[in-house]
Amino acid sequence: MTEQKLIELLRDMSLEEKVNQMSQVTGGFFNGEIVVTGPMEDKGFTEDNVNLAGSVIGSMGAETLKSIQKNYMEKHPHHIPLLFMLDVINGYKTVFPIPLAQGASFEPELSEQCASVAAKEASVSGLHVTFAPMTDLVRDARWGRVMESTGEDPYLNSLFCAAMVRGFQGNSLKDNYAIAACVKHFAGYGAPTAGRDYNTVELSEHTFREFYLPSYQAGIDAGAALVMTSFNTVNGIPATGNKKLMRDILREQMKFDGVLISDWAAIEETIYHGYCADREEAAVRAVEAGVDIDMMTGIYSENLCQMVRDGKIREELIDEACLRILRLKNNLGLFENPYKDADQKKEKEYILCEEHRNLAREAAKKSFVLLKNEEHILPLDQQKRIAFIGPYVDSRNLLGAWSFIADAKDVMTLHEAVQEQYVSENSTFCQGSPMLGADVCLEGFGEQQQQSYTKEQEEHMLQEAVQAAEEADIVVLAIGEDRLQSGEATSNANIRIPEVQEALLDRIAEVNQNIVVVLFSGRPLDIREINKKAKSILQVWLPGTEGARAIVDTLFGKYNPSGKLPMSFPYCVGQVPVHYNEYSTGRPHIEGKDKDRFRSKYLDIPNEPLYPFGYGLSYTTFEVSDIHLDRTWMDTSGQIEAEVTVKNTGNCTGTETLQLYIHDIAASVVRPVKELKDFKKVTLLPGEEKKVVFTITEQELRFLTEDGIYASEAGEFEIFIGKDSLTGNKASFVLKK
Amino acid sequence: MTEQKLIELLRDMSLEEKVNQMSQVTGGFFNGEIVVTGPMEDKGFTEDNVNLAGSVIGSMGAETLKSIQKNYMEKHPHHIPLLFMLDVINGYKTVFPIPLAQGASFEPELSEQCASVAAKEASVSGLHVTFAPMTDLVRDARWGRVMESTGEDPYLNSLFCAAMVRGFQGNSLKDNYAIAACVKHFAGYGAPTAGRDYNTVELSEHTFREFYLPSYQAGIDAGAALVMTSFNTVNGIPATGNKKLMRDILREQMKFDGVLISDWAAIEETIYHGYCADREEAAVRAVEAGVDIDMMTGIYSENLCQMVRDGKIREELIDEACLRILRLKNNLGLFENPYKDADQKKEKEYILCEEHRNLAREAAKKSFVLLKNEEHILPLDQQKRIAFIGPYVDSRNLLGAWSFIADAKDVMTLHEAVQEQYVSENSTFCQGSPMLGADVCLEGFGEQQQQSYTKEQEEHMLQEAVQAAEEADIVVLAIGEDRLQSGEATSNANIRIPEVQEALLDRIAEVNQNIVVVLFSGRPLDIREINKKAKSILQVWLPGTEGARAIVDTLFGKYNPSGKLPMSFPYCVGQVPVHYNEYSTGRPHIEGKDKDRFRSKYLDIPNEPLYPFGYGLSYTTFEVSDIHLDRTWMDTSGQIEAEVTVKNTGNCTGTETLQLYIHDIAASVVRPVKELKDFKKVTLLPGEEKKVVFTITEQELRFLTEDGIYASEAGEFEIFIGKDSLTGNKASFVLKK
Repeated sequence: MTEQKLIELLRDMSLEEKVNQMSQVTGGFFNGEIVVTGPMEDKGFTEDNVNLAGSVIGSMGAETLKSIQKNYMEKHPHHIPLLFMLDVINGYKTVFPIPLAQGASFEPELSEQCASVAAKEASVSGLHVTFAPMTDLVRDARWGRVMESTGEDPYLNSLFCAAMVRGFQGNSLKDNYAIAACVKHFAGYGAPTAGRDYNTVELSEHTFREFYLPSYQAGIDAGAALVMTSFNTVNGIPATGNKKLMRDILREQMKFDGVLISDWAAIEETIYHGYCADREEAAVRAVEAGVDIDMMTGIYSENLCQMVRDGKIREELIDEACLRILRLKNNLGLFENPYKDADQKKEKEYILCEEHRNLAREAAKKSFVLLKNEEHILPLDQQKRIAFIGPYVDSRNLLGAWSFIADAKDVMTLHEAVQEQYVSENSTFCQGSPMLGADVCLEGFGEQQQQSYTKEQEEHMLQEAVQAAEEADIVVLAIGEDRLQSGEATSNANIRIPEVQEALLDRIAEVNQNIVVVLFSGRPLDIREINKKAKSILQVWLPGTEGARAIVDTLFGKYNPSGKLPMSFPYCVGQVPVHYNEYSTGRPHIEGKDKDRFRSKYLDIPNEPLYPFGYGLSYTTFEVSDIHLDRTWMDTSGQIEAEVTVKNTGNCTGTETLQLYIHDIAASVVRPVKELKDFKKVTLLPGEEKKVVFTITEQELRFLTEDGIYASEAGEFEIFIGKDSLTGNKASFVLKK
Repeated sequence: MTEQKLIELLRDMSLEEKVNQMSQVTGGFFNGEIVVTGPMEDKGFTEDNVNLAGSVIGSMGAETLKSIQKNYMEKHPHHIPLLFMLDVINGYKTVFPIPLAQGASFEPELSEQCASVAAKEASVSGLHVTFAPMTDLVRDARWGRVMESTGEDPYLNSLFCAAMVRGFQGNSLKDNYAIAACVKHFAGYGAPTAGRDYNTVELSEHTFREFYLPSYQAGIDAGAALVMTSFNTVNGIPATGNKKLMRDILREQMKFDGVLISDWAAIEETIYHGYCADREEAAVRAVEAGVDIDMMTGIYSENLCQMVRDGKIREELIDEACLRILRLKNNLGLFENPYKDADQKKEKEYILCEEHRNLAREAAKKSFVLLKNEEHILPLDQQKRIAFIGPYVDSRNLLGAWSFIADAKDVMTLHEAVQEQYVSENSTFCQGSPMLGADVCLEGFGEQQQQSYTKEQEEHMLQEAVQAAEEADIVVLAIGEDRLQSGEATSNANIRIPEVQEALLDRIAEVNQNIVVVLFSGRPLDIREINKKAKSILQVWLPGTEGARAIVDTLFGKYNPSGKLPMSFPYCVGQVPVHYNEYSTGRPHIEGKDKDRFRSKYLDIPNEPLYPFGYGLSYTTFEVSDIHLDRTWMDTSGQIEAEVTVKNTGNCTGTETLQLYIHDIAASVVRPVKELKDFKKVTLLPGEEKKVVFTITEQELRFLTEDGIYASEAGEFEIFIGKDSLTGNKASFVLKK
């Protein structure tokens, strides 16, 4: 349909029709089924609202959605198709590693493929829109939703956000298997005070604009069809009713002209925030801010028609929003083909097909981060007696918080994966402890509550594990957080593994010193105790459908790990929020070098996280040469090439990710001590070396200056090239103007 | 001297003279003695700088300062007197409780008296200016310098800041024993990220203006002669070079026309921040921001003359700063009497005199907060066998971090204070454990490092204590942080008492259930373990010179405690920053009432601190009636009277602090769930009751609106009147416009 035709359609629609396009209901109103990912209350929809609602959340399946669409369109005065939306985060039925794990791959193209596969499975299941990617910058591991972010770095997040948008959307939303992406949560949702989900966000305007906004911008620039509002306030005003944020920043400055959708019930929640006195005010504030779709409340459908008639809201605002929604439907081709890719046959053909599973396995392997590997204990020697111990040995819950669409029965356990690939007569397998002990509460999770064991059962599990450990050469301890301990609304003040598992580790460590920990988590954890007791730690996050096979590939050396942390692992919870790209402060402290008291430091812990951003080992080792710059100054149109030679100094082929960081020494606003500006993956045979060249242009030196514009400033810059954010060789150059 | 004469003097001064007025040196340059409270580096002062420097930091004593003044003025071309400045925080030689403890009194008038006494002792010792009060709002107990704040509430801080300014300055700076106050640290220093001192501050502009600025404003309105810059950046620019902050906000909007002094070396530190490329730039940025005095570096004295000559800085800026400094000297009467109150005889007469000590004892008692008192275990029954155990039993280190002027030998120990007042044949005294164990590092404290004990000695101490506990009816456990664990540059990621003392508590608890903990600390601590094991907890902070006597008065019931927490005691470090006056969020969680998963909460701890702001018990109990409002609405010129009846329902006379909190239900920016607006102390005999009336006017309903002005908005308000910030009866009214 042409834009002109869309406008004609809009003109022909009644006010009720237009307003209801802006309203979203669950599929449950059509077929009784419902997926809940937010608070459920009586939203007060009438049958008319449902019959005219513009979109549906939380339903899926080609047959179901085709049927809903058909019935709906028949009844609709203008036969406008519904949009079907769902949270397809790290996969639909084939589940990839959680987004935070994907960040660890430092390989956005891989996430693009994953998003593309997720889109394919979702689209044949009748879906049109996914609420992803979440690109919120995160610095606080207490926040359970860090699992859905790609980490603490604006540049890395920008790359991943754009890649995922491309993956979901393809070249055109009309293409086969393309679904619309929704960049979320605009803006700043990832910085809740004290890591408590939905809590107030305190950021200076400078930090907000320079470090938090760029990755949303990257998603918008990549063509994201939708943006979602965040739950938090921005400078005292809820994002969902924040006109300055949405009109001035998002629409005008960031040039977003797609559909802005509220997060779940977020328009209504402007009342609970204490911003709006009632539902009418909530409606007007959200409409005036330019929020096109009201997710999961009846605020719009209840109020807007009457308010327009009463002159409380201008009809132009309704038209504007409705047109954006119609345009999205048109861009998806729904006016021509309202079922788009929905196809029951293709559901059977594509979902969980081998190609998809292989990609999941590949993505999982690339997300693993080897944090420690003393005495080359990994890769495992198959000839050794190996005891696989821990609650994750026989668990299928490797999918992460957003996998409610997927089925754990499609997941292989670690136990099964070992047995599939290796003659396991030398291996033993046992659970050792429950996943969760009495110290852990998962209030509100309903029937997903943890299993409970008697003291006797627990002691028996432990005894069995201790015996297995005693009889083994090596213990592989598969431990970590439960999958329900990360995700939305899962903030934790304690970020260690459950006590019952720490106790297991303690007991095992008493009888066997050769411990390899395979660590599952949705967030960076305080792993000091694990670090003391294990010779090796492989961080595997929540690795998805093919996670177990990927772990086995890695443990036994078929795959050599290459992941890098996308988020710092704090020394302890008392250190958060912590991130590598901090400011120097006026009293910088250099660990070990500086005994002066009056420095920015703690008395009782180091400033550095236990494992910093960008960190990750390999089964081989790499040496990086000093940096060679082709010149020591440049002007704004020039460039500098920074070259290093990287050599594989170990015994097996491996991949290193060289990272380029820049530090602007003095500027009109203070600059981070280091900022990631580029990275390159290099795969080398044993003994092989390669030259790696990074090109620095003025573009990389820009920042949000005192004047509020993105520009570079003349002066001296340091560059660092290395294997993580903490170490790395240094050089410097001058920008002249 | 008249203003006209001052201007004439200024005109007559050379550029060198004017510039050096803006420079501050230590007394060490004159007499070799020096007190260090910041990083010491070679500041590069020349003899000329010293001979012309406008002020001196860190020297004291009538004889010394008179001699320095005399020699200096003789050499000075215009015989302009020096200003002598020093950190006189919670007392000079007579030390009052730390400021945070003073906040717990909820009695600003008492702090006014303390400041007045401190000023008297300081002024007779030759001092003219103190770097107090610090009125930085604090929400994070990891930050060691919370000890120098009066807490987390803007209203309470404002009252204390103004009171202390009045106390130091009297009616006129020319008055006998008045010294000039310096409100610090402008601005936002109390909110370092992750509680790490000097770290970056992230606050939204709204929060910064509405919650952080008011108490500085209160100090300025009370007439504070000086303001000190803060070390942190504000919106990416170091405060000390932040023209917008200092010119637009401090000078223009907040109407401060006194002397703006940098914090220790803070002008130089704009370089380490990465804001200024070199010392010249640091000089120009600070001068342009209007920083009049350069504390402890040679940046101004080295650079300004030449820069004025080179046209890089306008001489008017120098004149402006110099005139402000001359005006301060004139306001202190130094042109007429350059020694002001310096008087060796009076030093002997006033310092540590009985009147001052009595005030210190009074102030200490009023600062104590009874957190718990099961089974009326306090006050102590003298007939019982009481074992006083803990490293604070025989310690004289009760003074806190800022007491380097005072002498611990003037402090009585708890042991001595018990023996002074009571026949102690039933009592035993022992240390039980060292103050600090191997888990605590006080790097950078030089010779003040902790004592070390052998394992055997520690075990012996412990055995002795266990035996004493076994033989006693009641154990008074005097434990807590070391005084060096709080104060500047003492951030801690772990906010529990030292492990060695927790171990002592554990062992004592095994043999005696009747434990009274007397808890010393400079910050709110995580006291969950203490809370489990002790029947009573008396929080005594660092109580000052007369702290021990005040504790004994309280323990044995001569005094009935009435202090209230000025800062929440967090549940654990994973909960910080935490404060009572938070925002509701869009998904507020009500503990115990709400099993919905998608709420702003933690999975593993409650949202509420262990003990909230405003909390504190008495040896008696009080009942507060429902609130009676004389009317249910008001307009902007009206008022509402809220009345409660409070009754002493216990067996002894006691004092309750009734607190009035207001909540603006909906507004153009979100409002805190509660804000302290008034409080009243009521002392009641057993069985006695009194009516207490709070008057609410439109003034109390104002806040920084969306439009950036302080105004009220029509609508519904809730009020709470109660004994702390968490409980309290509720009523509501409407503001009509």
